[in-house]
Amino acid sequence: MVTMWEERAADKRNRIDDSIPPEWKIQNLPTDDSVLDFPKRSGLLSDHELTITQSTASDLVKKLAQGELKAVDVTIAFCKRAALAHQLVNCCLEFFPEAAIAQAKELDAYYEKHKKPGLETSMGYVSWLGKYDTTESVLVTLLRKAGAIFYTKTSVPQTLMVCETVNNIIGRTVNPRNKNWSCGGSSGGEGAMVGIRGGVIGVGTDIGGSIRVPSAFNFLYGIRPSHGRMPYAGMANSMEGQETVHSVVGPMAHSAEDLKLFLTSVLAEELWKYDPKVVPMPWRQAEEDAVKSKLHSGGLTLGYYSCDGVVLPHPPILRGIEKVVSTLTQNGHSVHPWTPYKHDFGHNLINNIYAADGSTDVLHNINASGEPSIPNIKDLLNPDKGQINMNELWDVHLKKWNYQSEYLDKWREVEGQLGKELDAIIAPITATAAIRHNQFRYYGYASVINLLDFTSVVVPVTFADKSVDVKKADYQPLGQLDATVQAEYDPEAYHGAPVAVQVIGRRLTEEKTLAIAQEIGRLLGNTVTP
Amino acid sequence: MVTMWEERAADKRNRIDDSIPPEWKIQNLPTDDSVLDFPKRSGLLSDHELTITQSTASDLVKKLAQGELKAVDVTIAFCKRAALAHQLVNCCLEFFPEAAIAQAKELDAYYEKHKKPGLETSMGYVSWLGKYDTTESVLVTLLRKAGAIFYTKTSVPQTLMVCETVNNIIGRTVNPRNKNWSCGGSSGGEGAMVGIRGGVIGVGTDIGGSIRVPSAFNFLYGIRPSHGRMPYAGMANSMEGQETVHSVVGPMAHSAEDLKLFLTSVLAEELWKYDPKVVPMPWRQAEEDAVKSKLHSGGLTLGYYSCDGVVLPHPPILRGIEKVVSTLTQNGHSVHPWTPYKHDFGHNLINNIYAADGSTDVLHNINASGEPSIPNIKDLLNPDKGQINMNELWDVHLKKWNYQSEYLDKWREVEGQLGKELDAIIAPITATAAIRHNQFRYYGYASVINLLDFTSVVVPVTFADKSVDVKKADYQPLGQLDATVQAEYDPEAYHGAPVAVQVIGRRLTEEKTLAIAQEIGRLLGNTVTP
Repeated sequence: MVTMWEERAADKRNRIDDSIPPEWKIQNLPTDDSVLDFPKRSGLLSDHELTITQSTASDLVKKLAQGELKAVDVTIAFCKRAALAHQLVNCCLEFFPEAAIAQAKELDAYYEKHKKPGLETSMGYVSWLGKYDTTESVLVTLLRKAGAIFYTKTSVPQTLMVCETVNNIIGRTVNPRNKNWSCGGSSGGEGAMVGIRGGVIGVGTDIGGSIRVPSAFNFLYGIRPSHGRMPYAGMANSMEGQETVHSVVGPMAHSAEDLKLFLTSVLAEELWKYDPKVVPMPWRQAEEDAVKSKLHSGGLTLGYYSCDGVVLPHPPILRGIEKVVSTLTQNGHSVHPWTPYKHDFGHNLINNIYAADGSTDVLHNINASGEPSIPNIKDLLNPDKGQINMNELWDVHLKKWNYQSEYLDKWREVEGQLGKELDAIIAPITATAAIRHNQFRYYGYASVINLLDFTSVVVPVTFADKSVDVKKADYQPLGQLDATVQAEYDPEAYHGAPVAVQVIGRRLTEEKTLAIAQEIGRLLGNTVTP
Repeated sequence: MVTMWEERAADKRNRIDDSIPPEWKIQNLPTDDSVLDFPKRSGLLSDHELTITQSTASDLVKKLAQGELKAVDVTIAFCKRAALAHQLVNCCLEFFPEAAIAQAKELDAYYEKHKKPGLETSMGYVSWLGKYDTTESVLVTLLRKAGAIFYTKTSVPQTLMVCETVNNIIGRTVNPRNKNWSCGGSSGGEGAMVGIRGGVIGVGTDIGGSIRVPSAFNFLYGIRPSHGRMPYAGMANSMEGQETVHSVVGPMAHSAEDLKLFLTSVLAEELWKYDPKVVPMPWRQAEEDAVKSKLHSGGLTLGYYSCDGVVLPHPPILRGIEKVVSTLTQNGHSVHPWTPYKHDFGHNLINNIYAADGSTDVLHNINASGEPSIPNIKDLLNPDKGQINMNELWDVHLKKWNYQSEYLDKWREVEGQLGKELDAIIAPITATAAIRHNQFRYYGYASVINLLDFTSVVVPVTFADKSVDVKKADYQPLGQLDATVQAEYDPEAYHGAPVAVQVIGRRLTEEKTLAIAQEIGRLLGNTVTP
C-alpha cells in the first residue's frame, strides 16, 4: 500500500523530471562511479557551452559587460548542464529553465538598447543556485536587482540539520566525483551542482557546516560569513526563530575570487536597509589590502590545529593540514600550533542548542506528512531530552557568551606571546575526506566555529591517496565517537576523495579571511578545479 | 521587628554615609525643591573646583593633556561634588574617593615624568560614573586603559526594569531640579549625578529607555547605541542571558560632543577583540562628515511624530516636538510627518519579551532577601502569565524580525516618496516632562526603539511652562492607559520640568544620528545646561 507522503513525493519527482526538456535527457545513463566529466563527453553541450560552463563567474561577468557573451546563451548553457547534473547525481528540487531564459532575453534586450548591462552592479547574468522560500527572500530580491538569473532549487536533507543530502522526496544526492561518496550537506545539492559546473556560484546556508561541508566534499571554495553580514530575511528555514546560534547564508564556487564577487555584489545593494539583522558594513577593501600588503612584507601570521581533541581526522585530512602548513612555511609565512580551546564543551553546547526545543519543531514537520525520519536525525536531535525552559535558555546564552569571550582572550594571549597579530587559524572542516554515505557522525570541526560565529572559508587542498594515507599504526581512540569515526577509514574506498581545510578569522572578518584563503589556494595551485 | 533585609539595607546606607569624608558633609541640608545650584553656594567647593565641575569632558581632556590641570585636582573636585549630590538627591550605591584620588596621583606622576598623559588615547582623567559588577567589565577595563578614574556607583531601581529610581537599599533618588520629580530610571542615579555635575559623563544601560529617560528628565544628552556597538561583556544585569532584546550601554552628558568623546575613546580600544558581541566597526568619521556636508548644502531630511497612537504626550512634550520641528524648518531643513508603524504592536511585543520567563528571574532575586517589590514592578512584569516555551519564543523572534523588516520597508517607502534619504526621525522619548514620583506608566516611546534596535540620541529641548502648556480642551482618550497618563498632567506641578526629544536613526548609525542631534542642540541653543 502506498501511503500519502509517498504519493506526494513521487508526484514531486515526476514534476522535476517533466521540467527537463526531452532534448536534454540523457539516453544512456553512465554507470561509472565518477560522472564529473560526463557533461564534456555527453554530446549535449556544444564546445561554446562547455567553455561557458567551465568559466569563472568573474570572467563571465566581464564578457557579458563587454557584449562578448549573451545572457541567453550563458543561461541556456548552465540550464543544460544543470539538467545533466540532476540526471547524474539527483540534486534538484525545482528546475525552471523557461522562466530563466525569458529573464535572460529581457536583459539582452536592455543591453542591445543601452550597450551596457544597465543594472546597478555587474553581478551579471550568471547562474545562481539556492534554496528559497515561496515568498521571495531579501537575498533573491537583491540578486535579481544585480542581474542574477535563477533556474533551479537544489536538494537538501530532511530538516537541514545533517551533513549528507537525503530526503524522502527525491532520495539521495551523490557526489559527482564518485557516487559512493556523499556530496555533503545540508546545502549538498548545491555543492554537487556547482561541483559538476551545472552552476558557477551556489548559495547555501550554514548553522553547523552546511555551506562548508559540501564545499569541502566537492573540492570547492565556500565561505560561512559571520551572522549579520549577508541577508537572511525572508528565507525558509528549519527551526525558524531559533536565534541562539544563527544560520547564515553564503556562496560556494570554484575560486575565492568568485566568492568575493558574490559578497561585493550583494553588499553593494545596501542590504541593511532591507534586512534588520544585517550590519551596515560595506565591503572593506582596506581589510583585504592589508592582507595583500603583508604578503609583500613579513608575511602572514597563522595558527593551525590538526585535531580538536575530540575526534582525530582521517589520515588524508591530517596530510591536508600538513600540506597547507608546509606550503605556507616554505613561502615565508609564520605558522604556529594553536591549542583548540574547550572544543568538546563547544560541541556539546551547540548540540544542546540545536535540541533546545526537544526537537518539537523538526518532529512536527516530519510527522505532518507521515514520512519517516532520515538516518542520522536521531543522532543529532534528541527529543528524549525534552525542552529546556526560558531560564535554562538564558543560562545557555551566558555559557555561549563566556565561551566566545574566553576564545577571544586566548586569541589575544597568543598575539601577546607572538608580539604580533594572529591573522587566522587553519583547521580541518571535517574529520574525513568526502565521506561514504550514512557515515557522517561528527560535526564539531564545523559547528564550534558556528558557536563562535567566526568567519570561515573552506579551501580545497588535495585528494585522498591510498598510497600515502595509510591507517595510523599507533592510533589510540580519544573516546567512543573518535573510535567510530576512525574505524570508518578505508584507504581504498576513500582514494581520490576531496580534502579541504578551513581558514578561520574572528567575527565579521570576511575581507581578511577570504584574502588569506585566496593566497593559500594560490600557493597550493588550487585556484581552479583540476 | 526589623527583618533581615531591612538590617542589610540599613548597614549598606551607613557604609555609603561613612564613605563621605566629614569635611564634605553638608551641615544644613537645604529644604528647597530645587538643589541644582546648591553646590555653587555650598561653600564646600572652591571657585576653581566649581569651574572644573562646570566644564565639558572635552575641555577637561584638553587641559589635562596640556598640563593646565592636574588629574588629582579634577578628581577631588568631582568627588566633592558627587558627595554633595548624594546628600542632596540620594544617588550613590558606592562611593570610593580614596581609590580614585590614589589612581589620579599615579597618572599625574606619569605626566610629570613624560610630559604627556601617556595612555593610548586621551580620554583623560575625567570622572566616570556607572553601575558595574564586582568583577571588572570589559568597558571598565577599556576605560581604565584610556585613563578613566572611577569613584562611585550610582543608584538604580530594584530589577532595573522601571523608569524611576527607587530601591529598598537607599530608597528613592530625586531630581536635582525639583525633589518632587523623578530623576528617571533605570540609570537614574547616574542621570541625577551628571545633572548636578557630580560627574561629567555618566554611563547607563538601556533595554527600554534606561539611558534616555534619565537623560531627558535631567536635561542631558544621552545615546542608546544599537546592540553590538559598545561592550557589555562582564557587566552585571537583570535577567542575564535574555537576548531577544539586548540591553545596551551608553553615555549621558551635557553635550553631544562629550557623548562622541566617550564613543570614540572606547572604540579606539578595538573592543571587538575583547567582547564577542561587539561589531568590528571603528568610529566612522565619514558618516559624521556626510551629515555636516548636508548642513551646508540642501539640509537634512527628517521625519517626526508627536503621538505614537497609543498614548498622547503631555502638552509640554507636544510643544517640545513643535519647537524642534519649527526650528529645523526655519533653518532650511526639510521635516516631514512620520506615521508611527504599529507601535501598539511593538509595545506589547517587547513587554511580552520582558516577561518571557514569567518574571522567574526577577522574583527570585527579590525573594532571595525577603524585601518587597517596589511600586510599578507588577505593572511591567506579569508573573501571572507564566513562562512561554521554546517554540513560543521562536515565534516571538519571528514576529520581532518581521516587525523590524516592515519598519525598514516603511523607511524605504518614505524615501521613495521623498526621492531622497530620510536621515532620522524626531519623536518624544517619554509622554511627560520629568515626571512626578510613582507616575511612570508608559514605556512605549522608548521601548519600541529598543525592539527595533535603532540608534537613538536624546536632545534636551526646553522646560514645561504653565503659562503656555495648558491642558488640551478637546482631548479624547485613545484608551485606558492614555487616559491615565493624560490625567496626571498638572501645569503647576510640572512647571519648569525638563522636556526632551529623541533623534532616531536606523540600526548602527551612531555617527550620523549623533551628528544630527548635535546640530539640533546647536540650533536650539541647548549646547550647555542653562
